[in-house]
Amino acid sequence: MSLETLSASKSFGGMLTKYKFKSAALGGLDAQFNLFLPANASQGKVPVLFYLAGLTCTEDNGTQKGGFLREAADEGIALIFPDTSPRGAGIEGEDDDWDFGTGAGFYLNATHPKYAKHYNMATHVTLELPQVIEAAGIPVDFTRQSIFGHSMGGHGALTLYLGALTNSPKTKQFRSASAFAPVANPTKCPWGQKAFKGYFQGGVEEAAANHDATEMISRIKDNVHILIDYGTGDNFYKQGQLLPENFLKAARDAGHDEVQVRVRPQDGYDHSYYFMSTFASDHVHFHANFLKA
Amino acid sequence: MSLETLSASKSFGGMLTKYKFKSAALGGLDAQFNLFLPANASQGKVPVLFYLAGLTCTEDNGTQKGGFLREAADEGIALIFPDTSPRGAGIEGEDDDWDFGTGAGFYLNATHPKYAKHYNMATHVTLELPQVIEAAGIPVDFTRQSIFGHSMGGHGALTLYLGALTNSPKTKQFRSASAFAPVANPTKCPWGQKAFKGYFQGGVEEAAANHDATEMISRIKDNVHILIDYGTGDNFYKQGQLLPENFLKAARDAGHDEVQVRVRPQDGYDHSYYFMSTFASDHVHFHANFLKA
Repeated sequence: MSLETLSASKSFGGMLTKYKFKSAALGGLDAQFNLFLPANASQGKVPVLFYLAGLTCTEDNGTQKGGFLREAADEGIALIFPDTSPRGAGIEGEDDDWDFGTGAGFYLNATHPKYAKHYNMATHVTLELPQVIEAAGIPVDFTRQSIFGHSMGGHGALTLYLGALTNSPKTKQFRSASAFAPVANPTKCPWGQKAFKGYFQGGVEEAAANHDATEMISRIKDNVHILIDYGTGDNFYKQGQLLPENFLKAARDAGHDEVQVRVRPQDGYDHSYYFMSTFASDHVHFHANFLKA
Repeated sequence: MSLETLSASKSFGGMLTKYKFKSAALGGLDAQFNLFLPANASQGKVPVLFYLAGLTCTEDNGTQKGGFLREAADEGIALIFPDTSPRGAGIEGEDDDWDFGTGAGFYLNATHPKYAKHYNMATHVTLELPQVIEAAGIPVDFTRQSIFGHSMGGHGALTLYLGALTNSPKTKQFRSASAFAPVANPTKCPWGQKAFKGYFQGGVEEAAANHDATEMISRIKDNVHILIDYGTGDNFYKQGQLLPENFLKAARDAGHDEVQVRVRPQDGYDHSYYFMSTFASDHVHFHANFLKA
């Protein structure tokens, strides 16, 4: 699992590097990711924030358009940008739709026989990437990690964060989670239902307990640290793909107050990176509070 | 020349809008550009900063990757992002190379008969865009305008700024110019020589006086306000495509001191938007000093 460097660009005093490696979690396929190391990483290990991108994206969208590097450099935090799915698994139908298969891995481990070998983005993100980065001697401190994401990646951030709290600890816990326009109740929306029917042998029913942030937050008693922003002009929000109100209601019903779970409607913003970059600074600073505590 | 709105996204409290119109300057072809209006534009006309992108780019690269919107919103300045060439002129050979023709208009008015009808990006940027924007009643104050750009667009920013100082005033002057990794002495580098040979009937010789920033600065006695950043790790710099030292020497020889012309080598940075976004804040604030004076 040795890392190959594809490119490196200095940015905000730190270094953004694109890596490639043979991913066991993704069934032996090549996987790429970007890693931003702030300048202070030369003096010792730095905390880390994972960014999970949305449907159709790659490891590059967040680095190019998110506006996260400046804040991460200021705070002295590393950023990891995984891809959104395996690439080139060669499964029949994998490339037919923009919201399923390639570019749409949903940050889960598939159980359907067709997808189980390659579509294991949950393991890829939470276990494999930390392992290959540590093995390469890159100065990232995985005892201090948080996670955020956009749309499908917001779903990923919330469910991997909450999953680490509820499951037998398969991975080191994240200290905080945040999301831009997340798919917050996927068992109740078309994107999520399609993904879960395809990736899980037991379909939507199998997914509910551990892959739907709204279902998960309703059962969790631990203190949580969650920030969500969505735009009221977001067409996917209007179409009922995101359902942030469902997540908020479930959180409040389970006793999580405004300090633990903050959900902010942002007036007139859409689903784009122009929305996200506007609040990028808020999100990175939110995580910095916990990563540097 | 009525404007058609293609899309609009709220960002940093302002609005980024993509427009299309039939461009007379570009021989009747459809032209697209992006315009960012900060929130304060609802209270009256705001000053404006043009961003000219580099080879192969469109009107979208700067908006998505430059990191300029945040600063412009803070300063209350509009941003205009033109395209880099006409599109679809149908000239033989126009799409053969990445550094000439489509995506590579070099912000000049061509005199070669093959290109003279369509390749008039200088007029398009300095006269036509202000005209269509004012005609549409968009609250931009073109008596307060500055210009910046990247690579070929840095060449464009410097030459259009200096051209407005030296020529009979065909356009309202720009108050300041800045550039990231500009093609600063195009008559002496392969990119510039190729462009000038192609676009001008008189070739490189015809271009020298009014389309080479280094030649131009050597003749100018007016006070100028110019900021240039380039990365020492930039491969195009190393290959001699940019030649910022030539520009600096010509400026100093002509009596322009550090206050008038600042050229900053940035250690280890490359030619990418990761370099540019690092210094985006410096550049927008530099222009704000003059635009808001």
